[in-house]
Amino acid sequence: MKKVVSESVINRLPRYYRYLTEINRSGIERISSKDLSEKMHVTASQIRQDLNCFGGFGQQGYGYNVESLRAEIGKILGLNRGYTAILVGAGNMGRAFASNTNFESRGFKLIGIFDIDKKKIGMDVRGLKVQDYKDIKAFIEREKPSMAILAVSRNSMHEVAENLISYGVKAFLNFSYTELDAAEGVSVENVHLGDSLMRLSYKISEKEE
Amino acid sequence: MKKVVSESVINRLPRYYRYLTEINRSGIERISSKDLSEKMHVTASQIRQDLNCFGGFGQQGYGYNVESLRAEIGKILGLNRGYTAILVGAGNMGRAFASNTNFESRGFKLIGIFDIDKKKIGMDVRGLKVQDYKDIKAFIEREKPSMAILAVSRNSMHEVAENLISYGVKAFLNFSYTELDAAEGVSVENVHLGDSLMRLSYKISEKEE
Repeated sequence: MKKVVSESVINRLPRYYRYLTEINRSGIERISSKDLSEKMHVTASQIRQDLNCFGGFGQQGYGYNVESLRAEIGKILGLNRGYTAILVGAGNMGRAFASNTNFESRGFKLIGIFDIDKKKIGMDVRGLKVQDYKDIKAFIEREKPSMAILAVSRNSMHEVAENLISYGVKAFLNFSYTELDAAEGVSVENVHLGDSLMRLSYKISEKEE
Repeated sequence: MKKVVSESVINRLPRYYRYLTEINRSGIERISSKDLSEKMHVTASQIRQDLNCFGGFGQQGYGYNVESLRAEIGKILGLNRGYTAILVGAGNMGRAFASNTNFESRGFKLIGIFDIDKKKIGMDVRGLKVQDYKDIKAFIEREKPSMAILAVSRNSMHEVAENLISYGVKAFLNFSYTELDAAEGVSVENVHLGDSLMRLSYKISEKEE
């Protein structure tokens, strides 16, 4: 059983992972907790505390080895487990997410895209042909995707989620502008793009005071 | 000067605001911190602590008045300040965000959409005609938008942001899949949709242990 880790730590790990990936690519081998913290806009002690949650990395005075820290954080996030995803909804949101997300470099594989719209079925999205939603049950039973990404309309989201759960899907990334509550045994990550607008509004208003 | 509030509190406020908006609409007048906390998946004491950051609301034993709590959180988030936004980039991401975000109910006004792509200029997106990016300087100087939403390509984001800053834009909501660092006096909210995939991955792997 993993140690229980607070949500705010989990929220910071993907950022650490992204940044370490970037500097690893540009050939940087070590980074001090001070430099990492400056870049991440958190205190150095916060960084150390976050990473200690999972059993400390790094050595006092030597900083972190970028590649191994990146690999460790990736493991914590489950990025080494070969998770597969299907996308339901090939509208603007679904296409934007599919086209711009580097699934592979994060260890994911997007294996199917589905829509009910005849105009979208057969369309090519990042090398996959959009399939007819009516074939999704057979696909899920055969391929057993680790997760479904929902980019459907607000009104159809709950019905789609219920269907997919009954076909065996146990995890959802939900971009459908309405909250999906996690049923027993189901993992859910709701993304509300409008929240980012409100957070920015807070930052602007804070500066005006 | 506002009290400094932690980022994790700020991250929770938009969720509270959304939920209160929803139940307010369905006619619910009061809510206990227990009910609010169950729905928000945080402890009741966390809810009280979060709201106390801004000077307590609610009365022991009576719960919160939904409408006034919603209004107060809205004020904290600056949603009552009539902020205006422009969108740069009318591709899939920009159109998805513009079409699905209820700017008005959060007190924002989307006043202009810009792109460099001739095929997109003139297109109608949620009632606004997409304008030519070459006219953006004059528009910004005239309309002084409170923020710019960047939904441009990874490669052009930094150039666009620099231009807009030189025209007077002081806040950015960045959907461009690469990090914009906040320059002095500039507010930035970076949205990395891929992070949500990693968070979901963590949740799945946690259940497998």
